[in-house]
Amino acid sequence: MDNDFYFRYPSFQDVHTMIFIGFGFLMTFLQRYGFSSIGFNFLLSAFSLQWSTLVQGFLHSFHGGKIHIGVESMINADFCTGAVLISFGAVLGKTSPVQLLLMSLLEVTLFGVNEFILLSLLGVKDAGGSMTIHTFGAYFGLVLSRVLYRSQLEKSKQREGSVYHSDLFAMIGTIFLWIFWPSFNSAPTNTGDGQHRTALNTYYSLGASTLSTFALSALLSKEGKLDMVHIQNAVLAGGVVVGTSGEMMITPFGALAAGFLAGTISTLGYKFLMPILESKFKIQDTCGVHNLHGMPGVLGALVGALVAGLATHDAYGDGLKNVFPLIAEGHRSATSQAVYQLFGLFVTLVFASFGGGIGGLLLRLPCLGSPPDSQCYEDQIYWEVPLEHEDEVQRHLRIEDPETQA
Amino acid sequence: MDNDFYFRYPSFQDVHTMIFIGFGFLMTFLQRYGFSSIGFNFLLSAFSLQWSTLVQGFLHSFHGGKIHIGVESMINADFCTGAVLISFGAVLGKTSPVQLLLMSLLEVTLFGVNEFILLSLLGVKDAGGSMTIHTFGAYFGLVLSRVLYRSQLEKSKQREGSVYHSDLFAMIGTIFLWIFWPSFNSAPTNTGDGQHRTALNTYYSLGASTLSTFALSALLSKEGKLDMVHIQNAVLAGGVVVGTSGEMMITPFGALAAGFLAGTISTLGYKFLMPILESKFKIQDTCGVHNLHGMPGVLGALVGALVAGLATHDAYGDGLKNVFPLIAEGHRSATSQAVYQLFGLFVTLVFASFGGGIGGLLLRLPCLGSPPDSQCYEDQIYWEVPLEHEDEVQRHLRIEDPETQA
Amino acid sequence: MDNDFYFRYPSFQDVHTMIFIGFGFLMTFLQRYGFSSIGFNFLLSAFSLQWSTLVQGFLHSFHGGKIHIGVESMINADFCTGAVLISFGAVLGKTSPVQLLLMSLLEVTLFGVNEFILLSLLGVKDAGGSMTIHTFGAYFGLVLSRVLYRSQLEKSKQREGSVYHSDLFAMIGTIFLWIFWPSFNSAPTNTGDGQHRTALNTYYSLGASTLSTFALSALLSKEGKLDMVHIQNAVLAGGVVVGTSGEMMITPFGALAAGFLAGTISTLGYKFLMPILESKFKIQDTCGVHNLHGMPGVLGALVGALVAGLATHDAYGDGLKNVFPLIAEGHRSATSQAVYQLFGLFVTLVFASFGGGIGGLLLRLPCLGSPPDSQCYEDQIYWEVPLEHEDEVQRHLRIEDPETQA
Repeated sequence: MDNDFYFRYPSFQDVHTMIFIGFGFLMTFLQRYGFSSIGFNFLLSAFSLQWSTLVQGFLHSFHGGKIHIGVESMINADFCTGAVLISFGAVLGKTSPVQLLLMSLLEVTLFGVNEFILLSLLGVKDAGGSMTIHTFGAYFGLVLSRVLYRSQLEKSKQREGSVYHSDLFAMIGTIFLWIFWPSFNSAPTNTGDGQHRTALNTYYSLGASTLSTFALSALLSKEGKLDMVHIQNAVLAGGVVVGTSGEMMITPFGALAAGFLAGTISTLGYKFLMPILESKFKIQDTCGVHNLHGMPGVLGALVGALVAGLATHDAYGDGLKNVFPLIAEGHRSATSQAVYQLFGLFVTLVFASFGGGIGGLLLRLPCLGSPPDSQCYEDQIYWEVPLEHEDEVQRHLRIEDPETQA
Repeated sequence: MDNDFYFRYPSFQDVHTMIFIGFGFLMTFLQRYGFSSIGFNFLLSAFSLQWSTLVQGFLHSFHGGKIHIGVESMINADFCTGAVLISFGAVLGKTSPVQLLLMSLLEVTLFGVNEFILLSLLGVKDAGGSMTIHTFGAYFGLVLSRVLYRSQLEKSKQREGSVYHSDLFAMIGTIFLWIFWPSFNSAPTNTGDGQHRTALNTYYSLGASTLSTFALSALLSKEGKLDMVHIQNAVLAGGVVVGTSGEMMITPFGALAAGFLAGTISTLGYKFLMPILESKFKIQDTCGVHNLHGMPGVLGALVGALVAGLATHDAYGDGLKNVFPLIAEGHRSATSQAVYQLFGLFVTLVFASFGGGIGGLLLRLPCLGSPPDSQCYEDQIYWEVPLEHEDEVQRHLRIEDPETQA
Repeated sequence: MDNDFYFRYPSFQDVHTMIFIGFGFLMTFLQRYGFSSIGFNFLLSAFSLQWSTLVQGFLHSFHGGKIHIGVESMINADFCTGAVLISFGAVLGKTSPVQLLLMSLLEVTLFGVNEFILLSLLGVKDAGGSMTIHTFGAYFGLVLSRVLYRSQLEKSKQREGSVYHSDLFAMIGTIFLWIFWPSFNSAPTNTGDGQHRTALNTYYSLGASTLSTFALSALLSKEGKLDMVHIQNAVLAGGVVVGTSGEMMITPFGALAAGFLAGTISTLGYKFLMPILESKFKIQDTCGVHNLHGMPGVLGALVGALVAGLATHDAYGDGLKNVFPLIAEGHRSATSQAVYQLFGLFVTLVFASFGGGIGGLLLRLPCLGSPPDSQCYEDQIYWEVPLEHEDEVQRHLRIEDPETQA
């Protein structure tokens, strides 16, 4: 009855829901790319969690010639898959399944190495993965997307937006991510107070990021209208930003402040930074992962370093040995832990950029089935699409190009 | 390992899913109000659960200058949010986000006071909130809707119905509410047998209300056809009706009977009472919360009073001190407990009516962005809506007003 | 705190989600049968779980004149409901609700008897129900569908396929089934290592069946395109195939191999066997349950017999008395257990075929409201369908029969 299963399996199932339903449906916002969004998300996840079980197993739990598995290895494999799906978001609609599988093969490996360096060698704390998952996944994907830059992507512009019902499908993803994020951040922490505190902090942070996102989305629009892109994405920044600090004594007020700030930065990113990234830096970021995972992830790493640097025996009591064992055992000061946290962020950015660069070069190999510029964001090259939709596509094309009718 | 987290967090996550996915998608049945239904549900919930943590915290767990939080406070905040969302259902499509936030601010406060009077002062039992959540939320919303009565609402009549796919989105909400309702009613009860019994009773009651709803929906139609409005809503009445009595010894047979009755009353309400409420009483109840939460909530309070009045030491054994501590300790007879239960219902109705009245007057203040009569149930005043939908809107309008074509 | 509730209720809720959301939405792929798919799934489930509580209660937990209920009875009732829904998949779109309720009445009863013979009399192990649920449900439905064969079904052919958004709704079902299948197979096993191991094996098997399904779906298509029918269904075969052996020492490698094989067989079934079943054997299997539940179920029973036959004290240690109590107590050899497992499969096939035959004859009774051949896969005979959809239906019909336009 004391089996670890009973303390972590419900959290694992919440995380599992986030990976397959959350990420999968969040990406169905594209009007003609729903099959690919949900289908490739499924394929990449099923592949990554198996490959990651091996990679993480060799690095973390290889004893006596065998990889030890259990509910914790399932959670960790899902976490690694999360990073892959973040990168997938950056290149969504512009890559073939073969390219994506190749990306996953590389990214899962580098994720495992980076995570091993941070958690095992540097003693960095990052339970909910602000660094190892969000920062790593986002910058890996962004650099990869930069290498795969398509100057003629406007040929597919008419399919890049959403339609009414595709936005509702995307909200299924958003909300499942939102409600289960407290489980995500708390799934791998120490049992007992550690999980309890992490869940609470994440819950408050998400509440605050939701309010700041709604407020800012309306304020930034000329007519005071809300933008579904912000609501589908930036509300989640509160979960990302406490990924490192959620298990620490950030306090509910700190969590609310961090969440409020993350929602603000993320919404501003979608509104102002994203067009600049494309026009100036040639980074085409389909889902805006820079705004949802990149910036909030880096901010989360900084918040984590700050809160770690403020750790005292008084504040944590007996819990200090669980949250910061190296400080509790006197091997490190709080300040030194904070420096290690910052160094962990640096290592992550290096690994992500390097990996994304290599990945991009690999994915530019011919024969990987990359879609042509005029067929991006289009299911029909990879899927049997029911006839009725093709009819609608025709109808749309006619509406869009009235001169072809004449 | 004995942390309360492990005994309540899975139930909390089920409740959380009901609030954000369940209520949210249930309200997407309106053809042109999907963004607002799911989006405002999200906004109000994120706001209410933070505000409620403060209000309930001051009233219930304010010790030594600090509010004590934990998984129970998260559950209670979600419960209070549920009441707000029920009221939202009554005015869905006819209020602006600013009006709704103002409503939430008031309703959360009054909810906290009413709950404090019932649970802490009167010693009333109401685990699943037949009174505190459903009755309170429904009559607050109905009175508020009465004060905001729009005599010209038929100008928006063409958008009040559903379309095929919007009804399927609504079923996501219905079913998540239905499957997790046993967790809702059992989330705050005593651990052990109390939670176990409550979950079972709710499960049976819901099964019975589903059967009576399907049967009656077909019987009431001339051609024997089922009506999606009944299936989306009245099936859930079985969860509402055992909200008070679920943790008591209502027995499975009692739960089945209560559920069957609740499904019947609710379906009859949608069919016959709802048009009368609008025409005679000038209450425009968009989601029919009177049928799903109002009448079944009152019925649930009465069932709870009845079952409480029948409580004996024999029937409950050692469990009596958990379910009815005041009876177990000899401070009250079972009959006296039943009278207190009825008085709790009376107090709730007074608070809800008074609060809804005040709320309605507040919301009639100008400058709150209330939509004009001809723009109710319409996303486009508050949201950037993708172009394709506007095209369809145009097409609809042409179909509906053929004379404008000439 | 040691209440069984805390060890099984989270798994129960996952199973509950699979039954109502998973099966329900998986069947919404039909373009004009979404209301019926999700609605009748709901009705049959609510009915079956109440009726099954009685049937299983009398057979398994009837003591002192009372049926004993609890979280285990809720799980078992949901399992029985799963079998009914599999049969429903075979006749989807071709039966009235009254016919379906009659089918459920019969099938739940026979399910209970068959399960009692296997588990209680023969001492067969079948935690996740490869035999009792999948094989039984599939062949019951297939034989029933054979008896109800419609030679003129092509009159409804134009409604048999999906549309773009109905395929996305179906993916909600697929993915919830996929993510929670580890909970399904592990819900009724022994607590502790038994549940832990079953969840792990199922997780790996599903990962492997997903990869083999995607690979084969693309390979079997002329243009390398993926087929949504395969992705929605065959990916799940990995869960079915370890339904018997999941709690045994199949090892992760064995689970991966079984899942890979199951995904392969299932995809091949959809591609090649299904048309033959209709043309040669006159079995019209709407959802292809033969490919998803029939063949993988039988394969799962064989895998279970094989793994049972290889059981040794060394491999299981103390766990042997939980998994194979009869072997541990010396009443049976491993080989003998394997033979009993095979006999259990045989009994299941006999019961399913016999039951499906009787059921088919019963359902052919007049006055049960069976839809005419030209009105299959059509919501409008049983539901009030919103006007807009009817308009689209008209538009479709005009497109399909251009001569009527002239």
